[in-house]
This record gives sequence, structure tokens and C-alpha cells, in this order.
Amino acid sequence: MHKLAVDIGGTKIAVGVCDEDDTIVRSWTVPTESDADRINENVAELYKKACESFDDISAIGISAAGNIKQDRRTVNFSANIPAWINYDLSGHIEELIGADIPVVVENDANCAGWGEYVHGAGKGSRNMVMLTVGTGLGGAIVLNGELYRGSFGMAGELGHLPMVPDGDTCGCGLRGCAERYVSGSALERFAKAAVRRRPQDATRLMELCNGHIEDLRGPMISKAAQEGDVLGLYSFNKIGEWLGRTMAAISAVLDPDIYVIGGGVIAVGDILLEPARQAYERFLQASAYRPIAKIVPASAGQDAGLIGAANLSLR
Amino acid sequence: MHKLAVDIGGTKIAVGVCDEDDTIVRSWTVPTESDADRINENVAELYKKACESFDDISAIGISAAGNIKQDRRTVNFSANIPAWINYDLSGHIEELIGADIPVVVENDANCAGWGEYVHGAGKGSRNMVMLTVGTGLGGAIVLNGELYRGSFGMAGELGHLPMVPDGDTCGCGLRGCAERYVSGSALERFAKAAVRRRPQDATRLMELCNGHIEDLRGPMISKAAQEGDVLGLYSFNKIGEWLGRTMAAISAVLDPDIYVIGGGVIAVGDILLEPARQAYERFLQASAYRPIAKIVPASAGQDAGLIGAANLSLR
Amino acid sequence: MHKLAVDIGGTKIAVGVCDEDDTIVRSWTVPTESDADRINENVAELYKKACESFDDISAIGISAAGNIKQDRRTVNFSANIPAWINYDLSGHIEELIGADIPVVVENDANCAGWGEYVHGAGKGSRNMVMLTVGTGLGGAIVLNGELYRGSFGMAGELGHLPMVPDGDTCGCGLRGCAERYVSGSALERFAKAAVRRRPQDATRLMELCNGHIEDLRGPMISKAAQEGDVLGLYSFNKIGEWLGRTMAAISAVLDPDIYVIGGGVIAVGDILLEPARQAYERFLQASAYRPIAKIVPASAGQDAGLIGAANLSLR
Amino acid sequence: MHKLAVDIGGTKIAVGVCDEDDTIVRSWTVPTESDADRINENVAELYKKACESFDDISAIGISAAGNIKQDRRTVNFSANIPAWINYDLSGHIEELIGADIPVVVENDANCAGWGEYVHGAGKGSRNMVMLTVGTGLGGAIVLNGELYRGSFGMAGELGHLPMVPDGDTCGCGLRGCAERYVSGSALERFAKAAVRRRPQDATRLMELCNGHIEDLRGPMISKAAQEGDVLGLYSFNKIGEWLGRTMAAISAVLDPDIYVIGGGVIAVGDILLEPARQAYERFLQASAYRPIAKIVPASAGQDAGLIGAANLSLR
Repeated sequence: MHKLAVDIGGTKIAVGVCDEDDTIVRSWTVPTESDADRINENVAELYKKACESFDDISAIGISAAGNIKQDRRTVNFSANIPAWINYDLSGHIEELIGADIPVVVENDANCAGWGEYVHGAGKGSRNMVMLTVGTGLGGAIVLNGELYRGSFGMAGELGHLPMVPDGDTCGCGLRGCAERYVSGSALERFAKAAVRRRPQDATRLMELCNGHIEDLRGPMISKAAQEGDVLGLYSFNKIGEWLGRTMAAISAVLDPDIYVIGGGVIAVGDILLEPARQAYERFLQASAYRPIAKIVPASAGQDAGLIGAANLSLR
Repeated sequence: MHKLAVDIGGTKIAVGVCDEDDTIVRSWTVPTESDADRINENVAELYKKACESFDDISAIGISAAGNIKQDRRTVNFSANIPAWINYDLSGHIEELIGADIPVVVENDANCAGWGEYVHGAGKGSRNMVMLTVGTGLGGAIVLNGELYRGSFGMAGELGHLPMVPDGDTCGCGLRGCAERYVSGSALERFAKAAVRRRPQDATRLMELCNGHIEDLRGPMISKAAQEGDVLGLYSFNKIGEWLGRTMAAISAVLDPDIYVIGGGVIAVGDILLEPARQAYERFLQASAYRPIAKIVPASAGQDAGLIGAANLSLR
Repeated sequence: MHKLAVDIGGTKIAVGVCDEDDTIVRSWTVPTESDADRINENVAELYKKACESFDDISAIGISAAGNIKQDRRTVNFSANIPAWINYDLSGHIEELIGADIPVVVENDANCAGWGEYVHGAGKGSRNMVMLTVGTGLGGAIVLNGELYRGSFGMAGELGHLPMVPDGDTCGCGLRGCAERYVSGSALERFAKAAVRRRPQDATRLMELCNGHIEDLRGPMISKAAQEGDVLGLYSFNKIGEWLGRTMAAISAVLDPDIYVIGGGVIAVGDILLEPARQAYERFLQASAYRPIAKIVPASAGQDAGLIGAANLSLR
Repeated sequence: MHKLAVDIGGTKIAVGVCDEDDTIVRSWTVPTESDADRINENVAELYKKACESFDDISAIGISAAGNIKQDRRTVNFSANIPAWINYDLSGHIEELIGADIPVVVENDANCAGWGEYVHGAGKGSRNMVMLTVGTGLGGAIVLNGELYRGSFGMAGELGHLPMVPDGDTCGCGLRGCAERYVSGSALERFAKAAVRRRPQDATRLMELCNGHIEDLRGPMISKAAQEGDVLGLYSFNKIGEWLGRTMAAISAVLDPDIYVIGGGVIAVGDILLEPARQAYERFLQASAYRPIAKIVPASAGQDAGLIGAANLSLR
């Protein structure tokens, strides 16, 4: 028995055929088109291609960047695909594939979080929070062994936890959201500001972006930080501190035993996690009188989302 | 079959004998002494007194202001009773009463929240958050019909959700905690500041406190607000706005379908709840694209904590 | 006797021949080129053109967007012209014109402020602060009848007064600077956020930007506000409130008797000034016990900067 | 020729006879009574006592904790003496002494600042700001050799510069005023919070306050910090950082060349000033492109206020 995991991302659609243990045994990718119909057709085509090699695909689990309704079929809305407003994604795909198998849709951060819970760093935890530090900041919550989705499918929107009243303007229209301080784009913002204020210390960062500060990207800052560059480290200290503060806020609500930190930025490991752990304790209520949650890097790899989607497709 | 509910508060110990439906059929109170042994003795005496009239008391549920461990027996620490550090409250009481019945300890805000969930305004909800606006700000979380306690018994410490970096100094040693902006003492602080800044508008409030601003208390501000006094209403608008902001933050994590607001301050009803509802929508992420949680006053009455403790004693 | 006033702006160089009363009797403009030499040549050419009609030009006053040294000749640095680092602007121009007349350079916001003080809304005031709400937020300070430049020519950088710790990221590399909350670009930011959060109220604004929110500009928001549009008014209320807060902060330092508000945004008049006045009193220390500074629109017109530069050229 | 300097403080009235160089040649103190008439009588008696030894007292300079009008005679209001509302302090004293000499009243922070400017650390500066870090935070501004009082006598109220929106509640009725973060009482607040959060590091501080944290006072924290105690140093780092942020804000307005830091807390010297200097540069706009103001301790001693009052009495 196999499951098809589908990750509809901002730039590509990744598809993986997974076995019963959620191991990906075959995978394909195609570019993501902005047209909703073309996305459905691409998914259907990839399903058919998968069926050519695997005759026992018994479920499809879709990871989608958007707010998913309680029915695990309908996208309420999505920042990426304008047509996905109150959109029956499962229904459209079921129609195209014409097979009677479950097509389950989950939020992408939830899929990644679930992947970490069942096969990664969160395995065996009681209450787990995953934070995915990518371009933005995604969140997933697993409580007592169950993915927690909230009453309207909007739980775990941790990137939009309000951290600073009147703070940095967020794309969502609010101010001071956590993802304005903890994300790859926040990293770039901190680094660019540091270059502007401390040009005398910016030699390495300017070198890495070929003298064009507007081209400075996260991986360059990671490289600099790993070499010990002072502004590179400064930038990670800043997002690390805010990551710690964000987790301290989450703990006031959820009190989990573990935080799993994923996303591209986590490649630098303790360069991010050490300042995060320190700030977490500094800003955690009653930190001297309680056990401190573990803060660990994700371990299920880049395919955590596919793995999670595969596993969730039959739950 | 009856249950004994015990509420060990800051000033008094309240005890209620509850029937199977958690209805209080008899109750007593004694003053709370600061000595832990005397508290235990008082509880044991009240138990014995209850047994004189009820021969079928089959469980004791204790509501205590403190952080309770997962075992539902041990107080990890408490701001009120210094001796309650890693303190086996159930054990001490079991020893004194010498009866083989369960003695279950729960956090007081959790008891009140659970009382509202089973017998009050939260009945029938899917995911409920209760906020108790008293001297401080207490929180309780009920998810999918279960009280959520977190991994270390510290979940739902919503009064210490960080709302303002470098904000008002909290007794817990942090800054900007929600309860510095949403509580009876916050109400007094806002009102006193308003009196100081707008003496020309302060006639009624100064009258109510007999001209001694340091004696201004919450009930006077409530009275003034209910009469339409401008500074009284201003003060409720402020804590209402912060209540709304606090709920918006909680929704980014939990996405509940209902907030139940309790505590002494809620007596003013919509004077508090209307600004709270408005601020909630104003600061809620994606508020135009999601259902809005209900925000309602508590309805189980002042004994919600006892009722909740009674019900939890046999769960 | 005439004076030549020159305003080297981001897009154009404006030149005015002024009589003894600083009245502009003739004016020209040319586009601003980014090359510093070409700017000097353009200024020299315009000077020669002016001399063809006026044979008694006895001073040149230059208004420049940059930080000007105490010598009133040297640009310390400028955000617009990269070559202007420690740049003897007066010297370069003197060399090209070959005439023995004073060439005085002043910061552009200072020129506008001085123009308002000698010929506009600030006339007769004792201590005046001007705030120019344009793309950014400029400041000028006149104390006891003298332009106040500070010890290093950096006084009155009021757009970079820190208003919100960890606030909105500023181009200067700091966070929470006043101009992130009070400026034309802040106005656009508030309006865009409001459109995103309240699409149901955004009909008029969307109409004005032809459905492309990224094209929404200040004048469209002004137009909508003047028509009574709710989101347009909301946006002005926001920058108005922050303008009031900024002035309250300035008053804790300078306690002026008048604030003159200039810049393109002020065209809406009381739509901006009323919320500013209210917030000013709300956030001013001891507002019940002190005279309240007047807050008035600039009245010297768009040429306030030229007028001020002309007047300063002989002081 | 001698002058009589009078400092009407919260607990005592200090009087000094000063020679032409403002040197104090004789001095007395009496306790401050809360009754305004008694204060006047005490000042008059001390004047008569001074006249017994000095027959050429030709002016009285009074330093008073309050907001003083432009006439340098009238107290607009005072937090300490309730009767001082629009109170002609000079007139009352002139009447009692019956001598035809000038009686000049100045704000106490202004007197101390002026004392530092004419005889202390600010000597020879161009534009000086003094910050007095005592129980609260006082400010004085000297521009181009003149004390700057503002249009309504309220300039230099730097302790009430708004630093944190929605921040710590100030006695003035606003929130987030600088003196809530930079003052002796702020120092105590930071230290107490640190003790509460890090009991394991609090041995020395608890020892110094004999185990009663509510008795912890500034001098104990200074002592601990000077011994190298971690929480003592932490507390000074915090107020130092906020002192630096406050000065960075002031520089956006005034751009002075020197900050003179006085008040009891400055006894620890660089323990306070080093973190202040670092934060000043970190939060100063364009710090890489401008001269950095000097930040130095006051040097005129505890009598700076008397010295300043003496000097101002004949200006």
C-alpha cells in the first residue's frame, strides 16, 4: 500500500510516493503555476504518472500554503493562490483523477510539524510546537499525540503572534507579528540595517553580495556567520533572541515540552539556537521554578512536509 | 454520592458539598491562614464537618492558587503560600482525613474554567479559553472537551503572556505581561493615571474615593462607568482594548471558538466586553477571512471554581 | 540687491531670484542629475542665467538634502548624492561661478523651517518647531529667533526621533523612527494595511488605485479622506496620532510655543491636524498644568525652502 | 559682594552664602516643612542669619523642585508642595525679607545643570545636556552658553521623554517615561525583578537587604555592582542601556556635544556610563557619520545646584 504526498509550494509542486512507513520511494517536481486549474491538472497528471509505477496508491495527502477548513478539503484562503478562496481543493482533484481514494488537504506548516512528530525530532514528545523559520515563520502544534488545528483551522499561526505593539509592518496588515522578527526575511532586514549602521564592519557581507546590499540574501549571511563574521553573527543573534521571546510567549499558552525548529535558516544550528535558548529562559515566566522545554533542530529533513502529508492522508 | 469541593483562596477557604450534578448543596468558609499546616487542618476539619451531614463523600477536589504538577497532587510553587514549593498537598490532606478517597488538586483558574465549560457559558463549545479578570488575570484552556494543562502544568498562564516588550513591570519579574494591562489592578492604574492627567474630569471618581486617590478601587470605577462617567468609561475602554489584544494573541496560537470572561470586573458586562470585542477583531490576524470567536461573560457564577473542582475530582 | 536661492531636491533643482524681502521675482528649474559635478555645473549655469537679468545678485543660499557642517559650506553626508561625503559644496560652486559672493549651504528642512519663521506661520513665535511631512519627516528648530543647528549640524533630525523600541524598520538602519509613523510613506503603509484587513471597506481606495493596491499613493488617500472615506480617514488618524505623539516627545525637550506642520500631506488640513492636536494633549506631560503649544499648518507655500535659503544667505 | 543660594529640596532646605566666584563660604540646612508659609519663613530666617555675617548679600537664587514660569519668580506647579500652584515664590519671600534685592527662582535640575556648565564638567562646551539620575530623572539644557527654559518653562523635562509606548506607568500619569527606566527607583525595580527571576544568583543582594527584598535600595545595588555581583551589574547595565537610548533620542533633537550625568547613582562611574555610551552609539542615528558627543560624570559636586542658583541669581 502506497500514499501520494503532494506539496504545493510557492515555486514548485513536489510529489512523493510513500510506503506504509512514510518513506518516499519515488518523487517528482513541476513548477507551480499561479492558475488554480493548472495546479489541479498538474497534481492529477503527477498522480497518474505515479500510478504507472505503483498500483496501490490508496490516499493523497496534500500540503498547501493556506488556511484549511475543518473538513480537511477546503482552502479557506491563501496568500499565494488568489483563486483559493473557500476553494474545494480535494473536490477539484478528486474529479480530475476519478479514483475513489481520500484526498486530504492540510496546511503546509502543519504537515511539516506532523512529519517531525511522527518521524523526526519531535518523536515521543508529549506536547510539541514546531516553528519553521523560512521566508516567513510557520507554526504547528501537536498536543497529546494529535495535530491541533483549532476551531476554524487557524491554530498555530505562530508567525502572526503579536510580539511588538506598533512594531514592524507585516504583510498581513498587522504590526509587530513574530515573523517580522523571526524569519529569513527578518534576518536579511537585520543584516542590511547593520551594514548601513556599521559600514566599517561590513567588509565580508558586502563582498558576499558583490557590493550590492539590496542583493544580500540569507545564505550569504549564514555563510558569514559560520565564518565568524561579526555582523553575520549579530544578525542571527537578533532573530535568535526574538525566536526565544516568541517561544516564551507560546509557553505561556501551551507549556510544551519541546520546540522543534525547522526551515532553511536552521542550517546554521546553534548559531541560531543558542541565542534562542538564552532568550527563552530570560523571557519565560517563572523560569527558575519549572522544567525548561527542549529546543532542538528539525531532523526529518527537507521532506518533512511530504512525510507528514503522507502520514496524515490516512488519519 | 457527593463530592467535596475546596477553594483555597488568598483570603478564605471555601468548601462546598456537591451532588452528582455538581450542584452545591451545602457550603462553609473559614479565613485562609498563611501557615500551610493550618490550611491542611482547616480543610480536614471542614471535610469532617461535611461528613456529619453527608455520608457518601467520595472525592475531594481542591482549587488552589498555584502551579500544579501533572500528578494533580503536588503544588510546584505558589505566589501566596511560601511553603508550597514542591508540596504534596493531596498527601498531607489524605493523611489528616484518613479516608481512602481521591484528593485531586487543580489550579484555581483551571477549576473556574472547567466549571464554565461543564455548567456555564462554555458549555457545548469545541475549544474554549477562559480569562478571569480579577486582581490579576487568570487563564484556563479547554480543548476538545479536555482541560489542557501543558507538559509541566504551566499551560494557560495567560496573565503572563508578554504583550509589551519593556512594558509595565510585573510582580513575576518580567515586563509587559498581559495582567499588567487586563486586571482589576490595571483598571485602578488606568483610572488613577487618568485622574492625575485630567483633574477637570475627575469629579465623580474623586467623590467616590472621598478625595483620596490612593483609595480608588475597582468597584468605584465600575460604579462610575455604569453611571456614564467619562474617566470610568475610559478606564474600562483601556483594559477592554488590552483584553481584545490579548485574545487576538491567544487566537494566533489556539484559534478557539469561544472566550469566556469571568472575574469580578466582568460585572460591568458590555462596558468591558464591547471594547474587547472591537479590539479583538482589530488585532486578529485575517479577521476578514475567518469566523470570529464568541466573547461572552461567564455564567456559572462566583462558585464556578468550586463547581469545576467538584467535577474534576472524579475525572 | 538680490539673492539667489537654490533648492537641490531629489528630482529637480529649483532656483529663485529673491529681492530684499525674500520675494521670488524670477525662477527656473532643471532636473537633478545624480552626478555631483553636473549638479554644480547646473547651479552655476542657472546663476549665470540669473545674472543676465539681475546685475546685483549678492549672495547664494543653497538648500540641500543632507547633513551640513557648522561652516555652512560642507555637506557631511547625504542620502541622495553618494559623492556628497565631507563635500565642500560651497567651494565647488564658488570656483565655477568665479564671483566673490557668499555661497551658504543649509539643510533643506532647516531652510523650509526658517522660511516659515521669517515669512510664514511661525512669524513672531518665540520657540518654533517645524515638521515637514513629505515622503519622509523633516524637522527644523528655531529658538529665540535663531535657527538651531546643534553642535555637529545634526539637530532637528526629528524624523529619526525613536518612537517605538523594536518598531518599524527605518532606512537609516534603526527601528521605530518617527518618520516610519508620520510621513507620506507611512500614510501609504497604514492605508495598504487597512485595505488588506478590511477589504469590505476598501471600495473607494481600490477604485482610486485602479485595483492595484501597490499603486496606492498619498494623494489618492488624501482625496478619499476628503470625501469622507472611512479607510482614508483611518489612515490620516493614524499618522495624525503619531504626529501628536512625536510632538509630545519633542515638547519634553524643547517646550516650544508653536508647531508648524508642512509638507505635501498637510494639504488635507484638519483631517491631519485634529487627530494630531488630540494626541498631542493626550501624550503631553502635565498637559492640564501648562499652556498648550499651537499646532498650525505651514503658510509660506511650496517655496518656503527657497525663501528660507534666500534669507539665510545673508545671515 | 555675596549671593545667597537656596535649595528647597524634598527633605531639607539648604542655604549657602556664595562669593563672586560662586564658591560657598558658609552654609546651613533646615528640614523642609510641607507648609508653603513655613518654607518662606525658614528661607527668610536663614537669609537674616546669613546677613549677620555677610553685609553685602545682593541677590537670592532659589532652586526649587517645580515648574517655574518665564518670570523666574512664579512656581507653576510642583509635585512636592501642593500649595505651589501658580505661586509667586519670589514675592512671598521678598515680602518677608523686606530687602530690595533680586529673588530669582529656577528649577532645581536647571540649577544643577547650570552649576555644571559654569563650574563643572560642562565648562567650555557649546551645547550641553545634563541628566540627573536620582530618585527620578532630571534634565537641564544649556545652548550656546544660555540656560534653555522653553516657551513655558517646561523645557528639559527629559525624565518624561516618552521612550516606550504602553510602557511602565509613571507617576505623571503617562506610560513609558524615561525616568521609569533611568533613575534610582528604576535601578531598584530592575534589581528586584532580577532577584525574583534568578534567586540562585541573588545571594549577595539578599544579604545586603537582610533577606527583605522590599528593603533593597540603590546604594546596596551600587555596592554589589562594585564588588562584581552579577545581578548588581545586570541592574546597572539595564539603566545604563536606557540612559544611552534616552540620550540618543535627545540627540535627534538637540545634537549636543556633551552629556553630563549627575545624581546619586553616578557614584558607580563607568559601571553606569560604559553601557550608556555603548547604547548611545548603538541607537544614535547615523552614528558612523557624525562626531559622538562626550558622556561624562558631573564634577561640580553635591552643591552644583546651590552653585548654579547663586550664579543664576545675577544673570
